[in-house]
Amino acid sequence: MKSRLIKRTSRKAGLAPGTLVHIGDVRTEKVTLQFSHFDDDHHEEMNPDSVDACLPFLKKKGVSWLNINGVHDIELIESIGQHFDIHPLVLEDIVHTGQRPKFEDYHAFLFVVLKMIYLQNNEIVSEQVSLVINKHAVLSFQEVAGDVFDPIRERIRNKKGRVRNMESDYLAYALMDAIVDHYFVVLEYLGDEIEAVEKELLENPTPSTMQKIHALKRELILLRRSVWPLREVISLLERGESELIQSKTLPFLRDVYDHTIQVIETVETYRDMLAGMLDTYLSTVSNKMNEVMKVLTIISTIFIPLTFIAGIYGMNFEFMPELKSPLGYPLVWVVMLLVAAGMVVFFKRKHWL
Amino acid sequence: MKSRLIKRTSRKAGLAPGTLVHIGDVRTEKVTLQFSHFDDDHHEEMNPDSVDACLPFLKKKGVSWLNINGVHDIELIESIGQHFDIHPLVLEDIVHTGQRPKFEDYHAFLFVVLKMIYLQNNEIVSEQVSLVINKHAVLSFQEVAGDVFDPIRERIRNKKGRVRNMESDYLAYALMDAIVDHYFVVLEYLGDEIEAVEKELLENPTPSTMQKIHALKRELILLRRSVWPLREVISLLERGESELIQSKTLPFLRDVYDHTIQVIETVETYRDMLAGMLDTYLSTVSNKMNEVMKVLTIISTIFIPLTFIAGIYGMNFEFMPELKSPLGYPLVWVVMLLVAAGMVVFFKRKHWL
Amino acid sequence: MKSRLIKRTSRKAGLAPGTLVHIGDVRTEKVTLQFSHFDDDHHEEMNPDSVDACLPFLKKKGVSWLNINGVHDIELIESIGQHFDIHPLVLEDIVHTGQRPKFEDYHAFLFVVLKMIYLQNNEIVSEQVSLVINKHAVLSFQEVAGDVFDPIRERIRNKKGRVRNMESDYLAYALMDAIVDHYFVVLEYLGDEIEAVEKELLENPTPSTMQKIHALKRELILLRRSVWPLREVISLLERGESELIQSKTLPFLRDVYDHTIQVIETVETYRDMLAGMLDTYLSTVSNKMNEVMKVLTIISTIFIPLTFIAGIYGMNFEFMPELKSPLGYPLVWVVMLLVAAGMVVFFKRKHWL
Amino acid sequence: MKSRLIKRTSRKAGLAPGTLVHIGDVRTEKVTLQFSHFDDDHHEEMNPDSVDACLPFLKKKGVSWLNINGVHDIELIESIGQHFDIHPLVLEDIVHTGQRPKFEDYHAFLFVVLKMIYLQNNEIVSEQVSLVINKHAVLSFQEVAGDVFDPIRERIRNKKGRVRNMESDYLAYALMDAIVDHYFVVLEYLGDEIEAVEKELLENPTPSTMQKIHALKRELILLRRSVWPLREVISLLERGESELIQSKTLPFLRDVYDHTIQVIETVETYRDMLAGMLDTYLSTVSNKMNEVMKVLTIISTIFIPLTFIAGIYGMNFEFMPELKSPLGYPLVWVVMLLVAAGMVVFFKRKHWL
Amino acid sequence: MKSRLIKRTSRKAGLAPGTLVHIGDVRTEKVTLQFSHFDDDHHEEMNPDSVDACLPFLKKKGVSWLNINGVHDIELIESIGQHFDIHPLVLEDIVHTGQRPKFEDYHAFLFVVLKMIYLQNNEIVSEQVSLVINKHAVLSFQEVAGDVFDPIRERIRNKKGRVRNMESDYLAYALMDAIVDHYFVVLEYLGDEIEAVEKELLENPTPSTMQKIHALKRELILLRRSVWPLREVISLLERGESELIQSKTLPFLRDVYDHTIQVIETVETYRDMLAGMLDTYLSTVSNKMNEVMKVLTIISTIFIPLTFIAGIYGMNFEFMPELKSPLGYPLVWVVMLLVAAGMVVFFKRKHWL
Repeated sequence: MKSRLIKRTSRKAGLAPGTLVHIGDVRTEKVTLQFSHFDDDHHEEMNPDSVDACLPFLKKKGVSWLNINGVHDIELIESIGQHFDIHPLVLEDIVHTGQRPKFEDYHAFLFVVLKMIYLQNNEIVSEQVSLVINKHAVLSFQEVAGDVFDPIRERIRNKKGRVRNMESDYLAYALMDAIVDHYFVVLEYLGDEIEAVEKELLENPTPSTMQKIHALKRELILLRRSVWPLREVISLLERGESELIQSKTLPFLRDVYDHTIQVIETVETYRDMLAGMLDTYLSTVSNKMNEVMKVLTIISTIFIPLTFIAGIYGMNFEFMPELKSPLGYPLVWVVMLLVAAGMVVFFKRKHWL
Repeated sequence: MKSRLIKRTSRKAGLAPGTLVHIGDVRTEKVTLQFSHFDDDHHEEMNPDSVDACLPFLKKKGVSWLNINGVHDIELIESIGQHFDIHPLVLEDIVHTGQRPKFEDYHAFLFVVLKMIYLQNNEIVSEQVSLVINKHAVLSFQEVAGDVFDPIRERIRNKKGRVRNMESDYLAYALMDAIVDHYFVVLEYLGDEIEAVEKELLENPTPSTMQKIHALKRELILLRRSVWPLREVISLLERGESELIQSKTLPFLRDVYDHTIQVIETVETYRDMLAGMLDTYLSTVSNKMNEVMKVLTIISTIFIPLTFIAGIYGMNFEFMPELKSPLGYPLVWVVMLLVAAGMVVFFKRKHWL
Repeated sequence: MKSRLIKRTSRKAGLAPGTLVHIGDVRTEKVTLQFSHFDDDHHEEMNPDSVDACLPFLKKKGVSWLNINGVHDIELIESIGQHFDIHPLVLEDIVHTGQRPKFEDYHAFLFVVLKMIYLQNNEIVSEQVSLVINKHAVLSFQEVAGDVFDPIRERIRNKKGRVRNMESDYLAYALMDAIVDHYFVVLEYLGDEIEAVEKELLENPTPSTMQKIHALKRELILLRRSVWPLREVISLLERGESELIQSKTLPFLRDVYDHTIQVIETVETYRDMLAGMLDTYLSTVSNKMNEVMKVLTIISTIFIPLTFIAGIYGMNFEFMPELKSPLGYPLVWVVMLLVAAGMVVFFKRKHWL
Repeated sequence: MKSRLIKRTSRKAGLAPGTLVHIGDVRTEKVTLQFSHFDDDHHEEMNPDSVDACLPFLKKKGVSWLNINGVHDIELIESIGQHFDIHPLVLEDIVHTGQRPKFEDYHAFLFVVLKMIYLQNNEIVSEQVSLVINKHAVLSFQEVAGDVFDPIRERIRNKKGRVRNMESDYLAYALMDAIVDHYFVVLEYLGDEIEAVEKELLENPTPSTMQKIHALKRELILLRRSVWPLREVISLLERGESELIQSKTLPFLRDVYDHTIQVIETVETYRDMLAGMLDTYLSTVSNKMNEVMKVLTIISTIFIPLTFIAGIYGMNFEFMPELKSPLGYPLVWVVMLLVAAGMVVFFKRKHWL
Repeated sequence: MKSRLIKRTSRKAGLAPGTLVHIGDVRTEKVTLQFSHFDDDHHEEMNPDSVDACLPFLKKKGVSWLNINGVHDIELIESIGQHFDIHPLVLEDIVHTGQRPKFEDYHAFLFVVLKMIYLQNNEIVSEQVSLVINKHAVLSFQEVAGDVFDPIRERIRNKKGRVRNMESDYLAYALMDAIVDHYFVVLEYLGDEIEAVEKELLENPTPSTMQKIHALKRELILLRRSVWPLREVISLLERGESELIQSKTLPFLRDVYDHTIQVIETVETYRDMLAGMLDTYLSTVSNKMNEVMKVLTIISTIFIPLTFIAGIYGMNFEFMPELKSPLGYPLVWVVMLLVAAGMVVFFKRKHWL
């Protein structure tokens, strides 16, 4: 997850504020648009080539949702900015994918930046989603096509839930809710990983176990960076000071706020758990190592005096009475066995064995 | 306690808000209802099969308490929601047992989520209890039958304490108080466990001691998650801004708030103690190991020079005058004993032995 | 100090709030009362058997102080509660000695809980003191007879200081001040202990040094629990929002607040010091151990090649020219000495010796 | 970065406040001035020798920017102070380059201190920049010539961006934005260093890896000191309480505030990462060392009993029946091989090998 | 610095509040007074024997400064208290030198306690300075003669700076500024010590290096205790709520506040640095030790198999064909060299050598 979170932003140093420069992974695919307009009775969907095709709908009653898949086409972003009268600093933030989640109230519209986090080939991917919300429309900017919004599209098409009866603020809430709900999928994946590592830790800890723990810790450091600021973003929205947020939408925002707190708490609990696992790993390894070294040292310690005794009678002195005695050899064996047994007993008594 | 606190919530991702999905351990037992209606003079109790049987009582003077043992019967929860006019987001939270403790004021009713924590077969079990409090009734939703409310039922039946003379807010307080008071039972159990481990630690620390410490630490991480948010929940209630809370109930809420703080402090003290015990364990083990290794190494070190001397006189040179002398052998012994004694004295002087 | 701070409170779970249950060390001694009534001119003292004897004084001008030595006589506490019109929850807290320091304003009276901490046979003892302060009287409830209030009694008798000229709020202040001042005695005792351990640490650290450090750390964890909440308690009192506190008493409360901060800071400084001492201990021990192991290993390492050389010439090959030469034996000695000297020089160069 | 951040400030102790003493690296080069005056239509630039040449412009419509390259010429600073009516304490702070970032509102002008951080020969250099902002002019004081403001000069010359159409507050913003934007260049450099060290850590950790980690940690400690207070500085500016800041500049200040938060978060993430890397390094080294010691000890442990057996048959007893037998020698070999094989099997079973 | 910061305060326990008891190092020298009175035109200085000599000046226009060198003469302090109408609790704090820095506003006068910190024989000395500030006079109480105020006396005598033109609040500021400025001298001294230890750490770390680090850490723990509360003290003064502080003095107080923050930040940076140095020390020592042990163990491991081979041919079996062969001896040498070389190659390959 790393390289995606520390963006090359130095290219921007020195440029006039409001200058649009795309910061993020280099992309070349054509940016696609998804537009839908709906009210209680009607619903229309299309994938227009340019923004112009959507403009007639904006004047009609109902809610418009324009989803832009890609922020690397600076000209397109600028044209959208002109049509919807968006402040240049907002456009600059939209194309700069290294933003932290934030909320800004420009009176005529609200600007929200979030991180959409999902799994792709068992890897956690983080993508910036910017929302511009005005009275009758929601613009959502994503880095690439493919998102977690399909259930919302389904609900709009099939008139499920409240989304067709409510205003643009509810649509924006639904999008944010879909993003936050998807965090739980990622958290569950991480939870499973943590449990797997924990099992490995208890059964057969190897150095690779520790590397996995460190890798998970690192993922959490980066995940945390995406979710902590979200708390403040949604708290600001939920305080309901903007006229664009209707009071009947507030309980829903409070709900998504609760979910955000749950995400943060789960991340913190995971961190605590990983810290505990790291401690367990280190002391397990150290215990095991100590056990090995102790046994090996005890073996050496038992044999060293025996070898010394053998050395004694390997000396070539002419006058060593023991060597002449026929009992010498068996007696030496007896002495050696006694010494060895004595040491074993001593070590057992000391609880060293 | 683990698996119960990290719930499978990803199933919900993408569903319309307000959709009821039961999140929690899969249960199949029939959900049972317990209803009681009382005022200063009368008291009635029953176990109805459906909510309809309770409705006539709701119009009478007095307080109604409907306890629902199980939140996995979505239809039942929905019917209760309709009868009592509960916001869909509240129903969604009730059936989703992965909530953190929270308080929400919907004007017509208050919504409180708590964790009931109790011991079952020497294991700490956490169960979600949701309370919906309106002017004349309290609804309590539990995950399974069996709870810590029996003393309250007893007090209602026997007119002990104040509960028969007060309103629904006092009943809700009594339920919360029973839950928080029961935390002390769990804390005492943990305190006993900690003391037992501490004794083991001082008398005969083994690697299993450390595993027990880590297990207790983990329990506390998860317990903490249940009690920390409770502080805010009860503080919000106790501030008395809701019209549903009468001023004469406030001192009681302040009392339960104090208990919550005590629970939190005890949890924190336990954590500090366990951290200290872990340190003690690690340094005890390390000390013991060091002691063993030192003694063993000293034994080796004493014998290695002696073995060298024996090796010298084991050499087969033809011209080794010492070997011919009848004093050679005893003199070598003398030298060896002197060397050994010298080393022992040296080690003693250095305080290594 | 431990067992006294984690009280058996589970007995209370399920009881109606306001039910008096004595929580704390089981005591059987008779509860004694000490009563004194004074104003600028008069002063009377007695040790009545029951509360009734004090009642006539309460109607007179002046300040009454009733000190109750023991809270395990539930009936007595209840009768006092009736005479002085004390809220049942307050009485419940008084007999429950596991309270944390707290302040509650019941308009008609103020309720303060503190921990009196003193030394008894070189052990730190913590005892709960509850104060009930109304317009003309102060009630002080202690767990056992014997306290730190004797100097105040002396000042009342001898008209020293201001206490005879002021109201009940000043008397309550004087009691709290006596308790907080006594913390310094305990802190000094701990400071002396810490200095003694520090000296031991620098001169001759043993595993028992570490155990002492851990024991002191533990005392501080528990002491901290008594003093941290005190800060808030006195800060609430000192804000002067209660009508029972006169403005001329406020500077005195500010003074005792300052002392509380000093106590807290000293506790924190001690904790920092102990943490530093633990680090010093661990690295000292580790250094010493390393030193020993290094020297021992170097001795082994020097002798092992020498023993090998001796082993070479202990071989029984028939054709070993060296063995025949009369210079063989002295030359081997020369070689051995050179090898040993070379290794010593090498180790010295490497700064290993 | 070190020596530059802990300045010799003791020279000032005892001087009257407002006394100008240059604190910082000793410099002798002549201080140069850069002046530009512009409005929507006109633009003039010059490098005057003294402040007097700029004075006529100050009375004209438009914005003046005086950049002073060097603060060690006390007389020059004093003359500027007189011309622009700057408080002596501000002048004192300007020439004292050990300030922390700060903002002060003197009504007639605003005073801002920042740290300009850039790379010079692969080393991070920190330089103090002080801004004095009044209605029609911005004064910028740097320690040496050479800065990160060239793009702004370019934009003024070429009428790019908004700077020519706005007031002095926008120019001040542009300067601060240039400084903060340049932090990202430094952060990227550090990020690359961290990644390089991380790669080294995974592939071939050496003690120098650890030294690099410690060096990076230290850079971050010092960098943090420059950026943390900046958050408050810009937050104060952005709150818009000064009349010198126009409301249309506020969104731009909010933007630079966001960048500051991003800088701080990146610094904190780097710190977390380095802490993790240090842990990884220590446990990797410890693992590797343990592995080596274990293998070596196992080799010794296998050979010690074998050497003992050889020692046995090296003894010179006259009556050792084994020595006479022609099978003795091969059998001893067989025994030795069996012992060695048995130990290897035992170690493998125990997972020690 | 230690013994001076943990004062014997237990002597005070039980005394009536407002009782003057000198707490601090026992001193016997006579307390001296320094008095000066000045306004814009006049200036008089004297060293009176008693306070009475100063009284006539107090009624004149201008500012009086009475400096008392020593607080152990209780009678003198009491007489000053009466002349200047100082609250008994303030006098109690003045003679009790274990105060933490604090500010109290008694309307008629302000009371400030600070710690003056300076070097004496290369040791850091902390001395309590209490300031009592009223409309026309400043009283400064020190523990011993000798202070950091000489530059201020010089400025008063020579009419340098503003002090002669301002009121008593500015004089008080000047005294506090002198004290805080002197902290930088101490910080620089500590900075130099830290750098020296750091150099030692990189070049030749010994156990005494670690002791120095711990000693510096301890100095900082105690220094911190003096400077942290100062922040709040000066912040309270600078908020300008007292009528005794004139608005034209506020920028100066803000300046001294900035200096206090700088002192605190430097202390925190030093602490971070020392923590890093301790880590570096521990891992350096551990690395070095590991290196030594590894080399020694490798030497042993190479010789042990060789000694075994020599042992083999030291056996006395009658039928050992190798012993008879004239090639036996040289071949054994070849085998031994091959084994040794093989092991060296193996160790090199494994990067163990």
